Amino acid sequence: MNNQLKVCLTPALLPLYNAEDYIVVIIDIFRATTSICYGIENGATAIIPVSEVEECIAYREKESAYLVAAERDGEIVAGFDFGNSPFSYTKEKVAGKTIVLTTTNGTHALHLSRKAKKIVIGSFLNLTSLCAWLKVQNENILLVCSGWKGNFNLEDTLFAGAVVDQLKSGDFSTDDPAIAANDLYQIAKDDLDGYLKKTSHSERLKKLGIEKDIEFCLKVDLTTAIPVLEGDSLVNLQ
Amino acid sequence: MNNQLKVCLTPALLPLYNAEDYIVVIIDIFRATTSICYGIENGATAIIPVSEVEECIAYREKESAYLVAAERDGEIVAGFDFGNSPFSYTKEKVAGKTIVLTTTNGTHALHLSRKAKKIVIGSFLNLTSLCAWLKVQNENILLVCSGWKGNFNLEDTLFAGAVVDQLKSGDFSTDDPAIAANDLYQIAKDDLDGYLKKTSHSERLKKLGIEKDIEFCLKVDLTTAIPVLEGDSLVNLQ
Repeated sequence: MNNQLKVCLTPALLPLYNAEDYIVVIIDIFRATTSICYGIENGATAIIPVSEVEECIAYREKESAYLVAAERDGEIVAGFDFGNSPFSYTKEKVAGKTIVLTTTNGTHALHLSRKAKKIVIGSFLNLTSLCAWLKVQNENILLVCSGWKGNFNLEDTLFAGAVVDQLKSGDFSTDDPAIAANDLYQIAKDDLDGYLKKTSHSERLKKLGIEKDIEFCLKVDLTTAIPVLEGDSLVNLQ
Repeated sequence: MNNQLKVCLTPALLPLYNAEDYIVVIIDIFRATTSICYGIENGATAIIPVSEVEECIAYREKESAYLVAAERDGEIVAGFDFGNSPFSYTKEKVAGKTIVLTTTNGTHALHLSRKAKKIVIGSFLNLTSLCAWLKVQNENILLVCSGWKGNFNLEDTLFAGAVVDQLKSGDFSTDDPAIAANDLYQIAKDDLDGYLKKTSHSERLKKLGIEKDIEFCLKVDLTTAIPVLEGDSLVNLQ
């Protein structure tokens, strides 16, 4: 019996899956899971994802050494150390630190997947490293796209397609969303940035002045760390 | 200000849209909306979509001249006149008749869209006729894919893509699902049947012995009637 490789296109569809049957990969390309991969690669001790800005503040009050990162609708919340830009997650800033992070979409998807066998974090930055690990787990895999405000977005779907592309030579059964994601990735893979320029989301992010972030978020295999959820924290998979 | 052209990939995502701002097109290619288009084209007076098999029975008891059609999980419910096969909706069987229909996915999507400005029914059978009408409405358009058990499916998405393809020369803003649907349609359009053969859903339907239905459901522009919801009934748009 082969394993399943499925794609959940938005967190709103998570109730249709039994997360407990899967290793779940959380995907939020612009920009939460990219920044998490980069932060863990750069030596952050842990990244604690939370749903609400208030929880971030509570962590800070408990432990002043924590860095707190909060973003709503693509912008840093006033009074926080930083938001979601991967350029905030450099060695200089995060090595040896614990970061408490809340984001609009990614944290939400992660919390809805709590029952999974294991939760790992994916982005173009750690694509091949992640896929190499997934290939040898002999488990069902569910790729969860965080989407935009609960709905489908192209960038997360393209990354899911990139994972399907790397795993499809293995012994996996795919569902319709996985087939669609892979086919869209085949169209886009030679020029991810160009392809995504036609999306409305890209327009929104451009208005926020984060074009350099977007370019960075589409860099493939810049890192090898695989962030994994242990308790309440994302840490480097050992 | 141009109009919006959006695609709702599954009924589970309908709460993310304000249906009242749109003309909604309901899509359930295998096979409810195909059969509805064919039935209305062939002179059915009205098709009444209902959610539950019990409602179908109640209609039959009220008015014995009604034909009742019920399907669950792709099979005709015992004791009913017919299910969802388009071959049941020929002139000989349906001309001048009222049919009460319940299906697994399509009726559900339709009921969730009740608040729309107008609800029309789309399938490959009436593609060009439907698009010609949509083009001149000067309204926002929401293409609602019925999906499979609440989740994304390829055949409904491809049809949504076919509509986007015909409307994209017009003055519409598209969202990410519309861009994805259109791109998938570009891959599949020269051999819809071949493309869909790789889906798991196609395998499921094949097991039910309805390969001829599937072939029929992918015929483009066989009909011109546009079924529209008036009160509780789908009738021919005048």
